[in-house]
Amino acid sequence: MKLALIEANKSYIKDDVPVGAVIVKNDKVIAKAHNKKEKNKTATHHAEILAIEEACKKLKSWHLDDCILYVTLEPCLMCFGAILESRIKKIVYATNSEKFGFVSSTNNILKEIINNYNIEIVEGLYKKESQKLLSDFFKTKRK
Amino acid sequence: MKLALIEANKSYIKDDVPVGAVIVKNDKVIAKAHNKKEKNKTATHHAEILAIEEACKKLKSWHLDDCILYVTLEPCLMCFGAILESRIKKIVYATNSEKFGFVSSTNNILKEIINNYNIEIVEGLYKKESQKLLSDFFKTKRK
Repeated sequence: MKLALIEANKSYIKDDVPVGAVIVKNDKVIAKAHNKKEKNKTATHHAEILAIEEACKKLKSWHLDDCILYVTLEPCLMCFGAILESRIKKIVYATNSEKFGFVSSTNNILKEIINNYNIEIVEGLYKKESQKLLSDFFKTKRK
Repeated sequence: MKLALIEANKSYIKDDVPVGAVIVKNDKVIAKAHNKKEKNKTATHHAEILAIEEACKKLKSWHLDDCILYVTLEPCLMCFGAILESRIKKIVYATNSEKFGFVSSTNNILKEIINNYNIEIVEGLYKKESQKLLSDFFKTKRK
């Protein structure tokens, strides 16, 4: 998650919402990415999507079965869908996204989906650090 | 939707699940794409994602507010999320996907989301044609 926070900081510097993602397989980092939605002017370029695409490229496969995704913010609907599509087995995220998060924020909706895909979800690792980066970003934006 | 079916056929030929997508703005086609998940070995390379990315590139913006997406199969969770992220105003899809569709198949889940985003959804245009293409594909695969 420390690496994901370093990635998130790259978005911060480039004026994109600071979110970073890292994919690990067998204790090795195989992909790192940060949110580039504004920079690339592309709706799909969230950190998770870019990290998944990099991991697929690295493994030459769309199956990321034994992979763990670390992300600094709770995934949105699109990113959660991409995580399921890629068969990632575990998501660890730092802090929840009240407005756009799709994992903890909509628990009842997801229970069935999560059971079907047998995916493990962990929340709260480096929560304060991620929250601080996000709130600093939005404070600057409001100014 | 005819153009989307032509796109879907390109996936069929290349041994990918035949799904095609077209994005229209002010009655002009601004993006066309077909499913390349197997070809590109990338979990995110569904027709809708690729079409959205092309449209963003064309318009130099992640906002696709006045755009309509035509797709030959009901979008999955990831693609529906990407449609919302890109602010597409209307989705027209040919046939529903019982297993992985997220739009009609999970109506109660979506009502709130659809209301929040004010997105219009139309189902059934060229339904038979899309169903035939898909069933032909899966018949060949089973052989």
